[in-house]
Amino acid sequence: MSSLPYSKAAFDEAARALIATTAELAALGWTPATSSNFSLRLDDRHAIITASGRDKGRLTEDDFLVVDHAGAPVATALRPSAETLLHTQLYARGAAGCVLHTHSRTQTVASRLFASAGALRIEGYELLKAFSGNSTHETAIEIPVLPNTQDMTVLAAQVEPLLDAGPLWGYLIDGHGLYAWGRDIAEARRHLDAFEFLLACELDLRRLS
Amino acid sequence: MSSLPYSKAAFDEAARALIATTAELAALGWTPATSSNFSLRLDDRHAIITASGRDKGRLTEDDFLVVDHAGAPVATALRPSAETLLHTQLYARGAAGCVLHTHSRTQTVASRLFASAGALRIEGYELLKAFSGNSTHETAIEIPVLPNTQDMTVLAAQVEPLLDAGPLWGYLIDGHGLYAWGRDIAEARRHLDAFEFLLACELDLRRLS
Amino acid sequence: MSSLPYSKAAFDEAARALIATTAELAALGWTPATSSNFSLRLDDRHAIITASGRDKGRLTEDDFLVVDHAGAPVATALRPSAETLLHTQLYARGAAGCVLHTHSRTQTVASRLFASAGALRIEGYELLKAFSGNSTHETAIEIPVLPNTQDMTVLAAQVEPLLDAGPLWGYLIDGHGLYAWGRDIAEARRHLDAFEFLLACELDLRRLS
Amino acid sequence: MSSLPYSKAAFDEAARALIATTAELAALGWTPATSSNFSLRLDDRHAIITASGRDKGRLTEDDFLVVDHAGAPVATALRPSAETLLHTQLYARGAAGCVLHTHSRTQTVASRLFASAGALRIEGYELLKAFSGNSTHETAIEIPVLPNTQDMTVLAAQVEPLLDAGPLWGYLIDGHGLYAWGRDIAEARRHLDAFEFLLACELDLRRLS
Repeated sequence: MSSLPYSKAAFDEAARALIATTAELAALGWTPATSSNFSLRLDDRHAIITASGRDKGRLTEDDFLVVDHAGAPVATALRPSAETLLHTQLYARGAAGCVLHTHSRTQTVASRLFASAGALRIEGYELLKAFSGNSTHETAIEIPVLPNTQDMTVLAAQVEPLLDAGPLWGYLIDGHGLYAWGRDIAEARRHLDAFEFLLACELDLRRLS
Repeated sequence: MSSLPYSKAAFDEAARALIATTAELAALGWTPATSSNFSLRLDDRHAIITASGRDKGRLTEDDFLVVDHAGAPVATALRPSAETLLHTQLYARGAAGCVLHTHSRTQTVASRLFASAGALRIEGYELLKAFSGNSTHETAIEIPVLPNTQDMTVLAAQVEPLLDAGPLWGYLIDGHGLYAWGRDIAEARRHLDAFEFLLACELDLRRLS
Repeated sequence: MSSLPYSKAAFDEAARALIATTAELAALGWTPATSSNFSLRLDDRHAIITASGRDKGRLTEDDFLVVDHAGAPVATALRPSAETLLHTQLYARGAAGCVLHTHSRTQTVASRLFASAGALRIEGYELLKAFSGNSTHETAIEIPVLPNTQDMTVLAAQVEPLLDAGPLWGYLIDGHGLYAWGRDIAEARRHLDAFEFLLACELDLRRLS
Repeated sequence: MSSLPYSKAAFDEAARALIATTAELAALGWTPATSSNFSLRLDDRHAIITASGRDKGRLTEDDFLVVDHAGAPVATALRPSAETLLHTQLYARGAAGCVLHTHSRTQTVASRLFASAGALRIEGYELLKAFSGNSTHETAIEIPVLPNTQDMTVLAAQVEPLLDAGPLWGYLIDGHGLYAWGRDIAEARRHLDAFEFLLACELDLRRLS
């Protein structure tokens, strides 16, 4: 164990924190059919991430592995999620300390509805203040909607210019779900909850108008 | 402790009551992304209120502070919610013993939909009897919808004439959520639940008609 | 105690059964703002019923009283629900052993939508077999929608001819909610759940068509 | 006991697994009014299945019986679900190790909406990868919608050519609900959750477009 290139204590603590959060997200129905994946930065070279295909409502420490910031598994036989690169590109840039990728019905429906526009603009809500750096509702955010692909290098390359343009707290992938992040698990969760809420309001208003 | 200008025992009891109620409201999804705030009158000069920016599903006694009826913090280093003044104006007038401000999707969507009209009229429901003083469904209530602003003195000034005109059990703020109140926590909760239910029915009927 | 005209043991058992069922219905959000009421037949002269205005998610034995089959309180200082007569008319006729009156959003919205028609016809669902006596989906039921009034004798008089025409498992009151009943608490609950499900499906189909 | 033609230990283990899963499905509201039924393959001649008319949120081992792969009860006085044949035809063909039949509002509404078309085509969702054998979202599935009948031999005969044409992970019955299956209980559940999610998204998109 002593030869691990990361702290086992940090791994254990991160796994516990992610298990608690993902259990809540699974109970909300945001991780259907073993979808979704979750990660936390461990140090300046490593992150912990969920293994591929696990039921997110029943995770144990054995369902996590460590990857480096290029997305390669470290000292493990487990297979990381196919989408690992979308997590680690954020850690490599120092843009996030935690990445939560969920798959709620609202996120998926919104992604399909706004895929052709390429983005969804949201403005005028008090809850825009939930995004780190915002201090008023008198603002607007753009949520990008990227085309889906099974090739993560293509997706990651599309994310890079969005991060350059920043600030960015998350994006949708068409027919797929939402990536949200933050400095730590609490901020990532706050951003995730704000995205879900605002998307749901926008869909409701569209039904009602 | 003995030098506190309010009863510490009353503070403890009020905090316990608010923690229980806010945990229920958080579980319903009415306090997304650390939004919403809650208060209870302590005595004729003081009220207890949630500190700014806390997760409403995990409150402890340390997440509450005391403010006077003008909204100023009393014997605390904690920062009260930015919206404290909307709570304390009701205590200063003797209009309420408890104020619950939530942020449900239904409340937020209704506030946006009826913002330009400035109010929403609801009539003909048995549940109108839930509002203190009503004894029949053969009545109507008006729920005011105020424009949102980060300047609480402006908002509070708009609330004053509505309170003068009374009876009033709550109001919406555009893109923001609902303020509801009552003599005590049970009545405030009953009013809150009735508002949420009636707003949801009205939105459903609009979708269906 | 020995002078009570009903069995205290039967009262205790009935209260426990109703507390368990109403807690489940409250958790579903079908009893908002202390609305709704619930009763169980005790013997050929008495029934147990919820007292007026209690929070249905937190009932204790003290929130129940006994009424006779004409709706008059028996050996109690508690005030029965204003709607007691709608329960006891079913016991007086021998039409039910348990009556569940709830107030879900679906029930309330459906009642308003079909009030002018006076009834809602439902056909072609497998779940129609949930209503006692039905053995196929190739049937239809009519759910009456009665105008609301605070005068229970008027409402009860409107229910009588519906019961004469039978079979009937429940009815809606406009802007108010649903009465459902059965031989015992399990059958009443099965009928209630079937009504809620079928009404929700009908509203969804109306939105989608 | 030693004369049972199946393993009592396998029965006990299967009952425990099905009780846990059905309790979760009941909590989601997918088994209203004692509807729905669930089975697990025991061996190459037997399966365990829920008895008729039980509350799926409160199952005990006594609510299960064993049937052979032709659907006949084995060494039991319990009555199997009327729909047993739809389960056992899958075991007889070796097409499944577990069958979950639920009755959610989304499934029921979708079945009615697409009954006249006879099928619902779903494409472009990342969650299509949840169905065993799919490895990309760039695919489509057809969910058959069969006419409802109380004659299970008629229904089973309609399912046979669909299974021949395969791959198939489930089908809808009009006004009735969904059958989903998999190699084991985890895969059947994953398929069920994916169907529910995708049907809900399709209904949402229909409302929004």
